[in-house]
Amino acid sequence: MSSTRFGTDTETDTELTRELLWRVAMVQAEYARCIDADELERWPDFFAEQCFYTVTTADNHREGLAAGLIWADTKGMICDRVSALREANIYERHSYRHVLGQPLPSAGQPGDPPDQPRTETSFLVVRIMRDGSTDVFASGRYLDRWALAGGPPKLAERIVVCDSSRIDTLLALPL
Amino acid sequence: MSSTRFGTDTETDTELTRELLWRVAMVQAEYARCIDADELERWPDFFAEQCFYTVTTADNHREGLAAGLIWADTKGMICDRVSALREANIYERHSYRHVLGQPLPSAGQPGDPPDQPRTETSFLVVRIMRDGSTDVFASGRYLDRWALAGGPPKLAERIVVCDSSRIDTLLALPL
Amino acid sequence: MSSTRFGTDTETDTELTRELLWRVAMVQAEYARCIDADELERWPDFFAEQCFYTVTTADNHREGLAAGLIWADTKGMICDRVSALREANIYERHSYRHVLGQPLPSAGQPGDPPDQPRTETSFLVVRIMRDGSTDVFASGRYLDRWALAGGPPKLAERIVVCDSSRIDTLLALPL
Repeated sequence: MSSTRFGTDTETDTELTRELLWRVAMVQAEYARCIDADELERWPDFFAEQCFYTVTTADNHREGLAAGLIWADTKGMICDRVSALREANIYERHSYRHVLGQPLPSAGQPGDPPDQPRTETSFLVVRIMRDGSTDVFASGRYLDRWALAGGPPKLAERIVVCDSSRIDTLLALPL
Repeated sequence: MSSTRFGTDTETDTELTRELLWRVAMVQAEYARCIDADELERWPDFFAEQCFYTVTTADNHREGLAAGLIWADTKGMICDRVSALREANIYERHSYRHVLGQPLPSAGQPGDPPDQPRTETSFLVVRIMRDGSTDVFASGRYLDRWALAGGPPKLAERIVVCDSSRIDTLLALPL
Repeated sequence: MSSTRFGTDTETDTELTRELLWRVAMVQAEYARCIDADELERWPDFFAEQCFYTVTTADNHREGLAAGLIWADTKGMICDRVSALREANIYERHSYRHVLGQPLPSAGQPGDPPDQPRTETSFLVVRIMRDGSTDVFASGRYLDRWALAGGPPKLAERIVVCDSSRIDTLLALPL
């Protein structure tokens, strides 16, 4: 935990942490609602102009493999991804439901801008098939870095670390 | 998002929003605990005197079909439902476990009382069978309108929108 | 709900409750992260020096059976449990992901230290098999009593009440 960035040293700073974590929790819930409601066109808005997004597996992440299954390091690539998904999903898609845990502060990394705190948040996504059955689609952690330039926090970085290494079907939606 | 009702214009108002959302999260957690603990007789207490409760599917809700599978527009009907469930469930019932997301403010609708904010909250319910196995029973969204007359917020309206269209077994418990 | 311990009588006390519940939610999320990240050696740190930990079933808990499947009433026993788990799990273990609900205040019990509030929190744990498939592993409630001696709240007591009575496989990890 980066005590500097989340400033847990004094009472004022603790309140700051709490305020920030609350704002992060709200934005993460909005992000999940955006995807679950199939409003993918709004999805890029959750990212800062300078951003990085990847989806990877716990095994790959542990081994330090940078390249995930999905990878975007500009907002343009994120927008392109939405277009690709819309073109690919001609047929009625399954629906999804995210449930998120409490965001926790996590340690800053070398090279991080000093005003961009990091958080880690557990997630669980269930998939509802067209026949009505529901299964656990994915679980894992969001490793996020936040740009705080007024208004809601924006994602400067989101590394989606899926617990399972079987993520071929993940291509159907953002996580 | 209804900025008037949740008053996000000033710093004071933001604090108001946060306070209200926290109270809503607490009441929703109590509501879930009430059902999961099989204390259905307390379930009607979560509703305001003037209230509306329905369970519907995402497909029906999208098409604007008002009538859900379950439908109650008086508190008496909600109480009746508890009695019916108790009579129907002679045999030991399965047990259930709700997990809820962070409530998010949502836009007011024409005709809403000005002092009754709306929220949207994701939910996931797992079912534990008598043989010990567990599956995902339901997922969806609570679309709530809240009566705020001192004390904990009460549900003036709860529309339970289930993601799946296969909800025949939903009759076994409130959602 | 223990109004004395959580002090809901005045505005100041309500703020106290909220502050405390927020701290509990953070610690519970850290606890879950510790287990899901397989950092079991840090798990005993979440407990107070004087502590009690047990895992039981809803059926047993309802019938007042004290002894659960897992049972520890000293911190030493909790540490021993980690060693035992490490020795037993020679093979690569499955991974797990916890999702927790909002902690709710619950009533104190006879004999509770007056400065140790209780909370109840729903949990859901999914298990990710080595082949990549994911299922619901366990659901239930944490019945916690908290020691508040500066710093993060520590568990003076955690009774893990699993919804399912089929918990033979629970031995593979703490809950």
